[in-house]
Amino acid sequence: MHSFIYDIPTKLFFGDLDYSQLSKVIKQYGNNLLLVYGGESIKRNGLYEIIVETCLQTGIDISELSGVRPNPDIRTVREGIVICREKGIEVVLAVGGGSVIDVAKWIAAGVYVDFDPWDFFSKWAPVKKALPIITVVTISGTGSEMDCSGVINNCETNDKIGRSDYHIFPKASFLDPNLTKTVNRYHTACGAIDIFSHVVEVYFNLNRDLDMFDCVMESIMRTVLKYAPIALADPTDYEARANLMWSAPWAINGLTVGSKKQSWSSHKIEHQLSAYYPITHGEGIAIIMINWLKYCLNEKTVHKYAQFGKNVFSIQAERSEMAIALESISRLETFCFETLKLRRHLSDLGVGTDYFSEMANKACFSTAINGFITLKPEDVEAILQMSL
Amino acid sequence: MHSFIYDIPTKLFFGDLDYSQLSKVIKQYGNNLLLVYGGESIKRNGLYEIIVETCLQTGIDISELSGVRPNPDIRTVREGIVICREKGIEVVLAVGGGSVIDVAKWIAAGVYVDFDPWDFFSKWAPVKKALPIITVVTISGTGSEMDCSGVINNCETNDKIGRSDYHIFPKASFLDPNLTKTVNRYHTACGAIDIFSHVVEVYFNLNRDLDMFDCVMESIMRTVLKYAPIALADPTDYEARANLMWSAPWAINGLTVGSKKQSWSSHKIEHQLSAYYPITHGEGIAIIMINWLKYCLNEKTVHKYAQFGKNVFSIQAERSEMAIALESISRLETFCFETLKLRRHLSDLGVGTDYFSEMANKACFSTAINGFITLKPEDVEAILQMSL
Repeated sequence: MHSFIYDIPTKLFFGDLDYSQLSKVIKQYGNNLLLVYGGESIKRNGLYEIIVETCLQTGIDISELSGVRPNPDIRTVREGIVICREKGIEVVLAVGGGSVIDVAKWIAAGVYVDFDPWDFFSKWAPVKKALPIITVVTISGTGSEMDCSGVINNCETNDKIGRSDYHIFPKASFLDPNLTKTVNRYHTACGAIDIFSHVVEVYFNLNRDLDMFDCVMESIMRTVLKYAPIALADPTDYEARANLMWSAPWAINGLTVGSKKQSWSSHKIEHQLSAYYPITHGEGIAIIMINWLKYCLNEKTVHKYAQFGKNVFSIQAERSEMAIALESISRLETFCFETLKLRRHLSDLGVGTDYFSEMANKACFSTAINGFITLKPEDVEAILQMSL
Repeated sequence: MHSFIYDIPTKLFFGDLDYSQLSKVIKQYGNNLLLVYGGESIKRNGLYEIIVETCLQTGIDISELSGVRPNPDIRTVREGIVICREKGIEVVLAVGGGSVIDVAKWIAAGVYVDFDPWDFFSKWAPVKKALPIITVVTISGTGSEMDCSGVINNCETNDKIGRSDYHIFPKASFLDPNLTKTVNRYHTACGAIDIFSHVVEVYFNLNRDLDMFDCVMESIMRTVLKYAPIALADPTDYEARANLMWSAPWAINGLTVGSKKQSWSSHKIEHQLSAYYPITHGEGIAIIMINWLKYCLNEKTVHKYAQFGKNVFSIQAERSEMAIALESISRLETFCFETLKLRRHLSDLGVGTDYFSEMANKACFSTAINGFITLKPEDVEAILQMSL
């Protein structure tokens, strides 16, 4: 058990979205706003109009960057940076899910550097500071609303890379479960398994750490198992939407990391997939996570799976650790592929073996992923093959 | 389930105390420090000398306020304010437990007002701002290192009143479990039950809220049940000390409150006891908490006790809710009075019935405590009688 620093500065407004509160928070940071969002859904449901109206009424000038797509490309970040410079933007407001928020984060950081923002990812160029970021969340999943990470694609090079930096923590995020009632079945399922997978990446770890971290992670996983099916059965169930929405940021904001080493193995592999193919992260991560869990199970790691089985799936403790471990993986498969109705194989998503070797190398940065178990490119390729 | 705001700005440094990090954090806020501490223990164990040396080496000037006592008096706060004004203090560093930190908080706020600091409590006079507060924790219990509350006594009027205000959140707290290895058996036990009681005050609530809050609270309670006995058996057990130390701030910082109404019923009653008698808060709260739980148990509240029994004490669920409830209270009694060896009756602590009526009125601010169940002065008096 080693030393660590806990530092999560994001303020959360949870429940009915208070628009006067939103404009008050924006005005704390400036009067010149860049509004970043995705497609037309926030126009259809009236959210766009209300936010714009509230901002204008309180004297906030608005510039817009719309059309942010899933697996957002670095070109969108570049576009946003140009607008910020031209318009003297002081605050960035992201209204959407993880893609929109991630784009907003790297725009906010990109404004302050004189190099191309892709250098943040390809060359690990330093983040100097960032414009204040505020978010209004419309789908529960990535948890980007309360973490300091953002993942960006580069379609020209088939790269998808995530990076963390303290400067890009949102100042405040507005989490209104009502806004997620219109999220469709498929994206609700993808978001739910994304939350679950973020916990899995930290939970399956051989470092010894504080008990409370594991307890919190088990609580988050149980929350997803309990409430995702309810939200699928009745999309307007406030309690289900609320529990999912609260779990998302806590699955990833760092509360449960403590002094553990993290590798984010499944995510490193899945990011390769959605760099090469236009697949939804949640659906890709479900397949990779399960096959990664199968691949990592051995005599040295089995105790963690047994703990997972007992505390998350309430599997009775009488059987051997290995039996509980196998049962827990099987239960998770049932949850992903039957309850959530996500597709079970990469081939179902149109993925072939063509780039597996290239992807495996990229996932390992040509060396290895040092995580729960160490994965070399050949291990990653094996996991991809198992997932096919 | 209503709306709420989550906003906990305190940064935690957990693990081996890094003194260069401590002085770096202090210097972010200023070079003129008020060092607040209690008795001689931090001089005996060398902590005082190291902190002073590190500060002086990095160009931080130090003034001191020492001799802060348990159940600290408002006169100590006044003393500290005088020093701050005379010396132009920019930062307050509290090295100790809850009493020291609470005094530091109200000094930090008191500097900025022209009225007597007792008016914060007796007249609810407004907090305008506060000097930055940093803490080094030497005993796990109150959790004051990560909350915005502070409790102060007034020996002249036999009052003990707590108050919260956002301005008095510490900027950063240093939690080194090693520092708590020398805490004696009695104070380790009192600290542990204080942590537990903070959770109980929020957990026993009839509002419906997010599942994760209850799960986190149950985790904290289980942590105390598991690790307090280990710390008592081997005071130098790092893991036990670390788990207790991490639980303390999370039991009280507000993470688990959500939209619930809170009344802090037991604390309102216990504060009266330690306003009139020189008793240690942890020992008083154990007695009051248990008798309050007994008093509040009825057909409408029993489901919460049953949940507590199942999830905290792992009582098998076959029996009736009432049977599980009674068993859970009995298990908690065993923990407090046998495992922790705290005294069972107020009379063991030298408390008589003389002031019960007066105390009951004060606890209810002459009306009622609107909490888990509403308590009028006659109810509080009954709980005090049961506790005798």
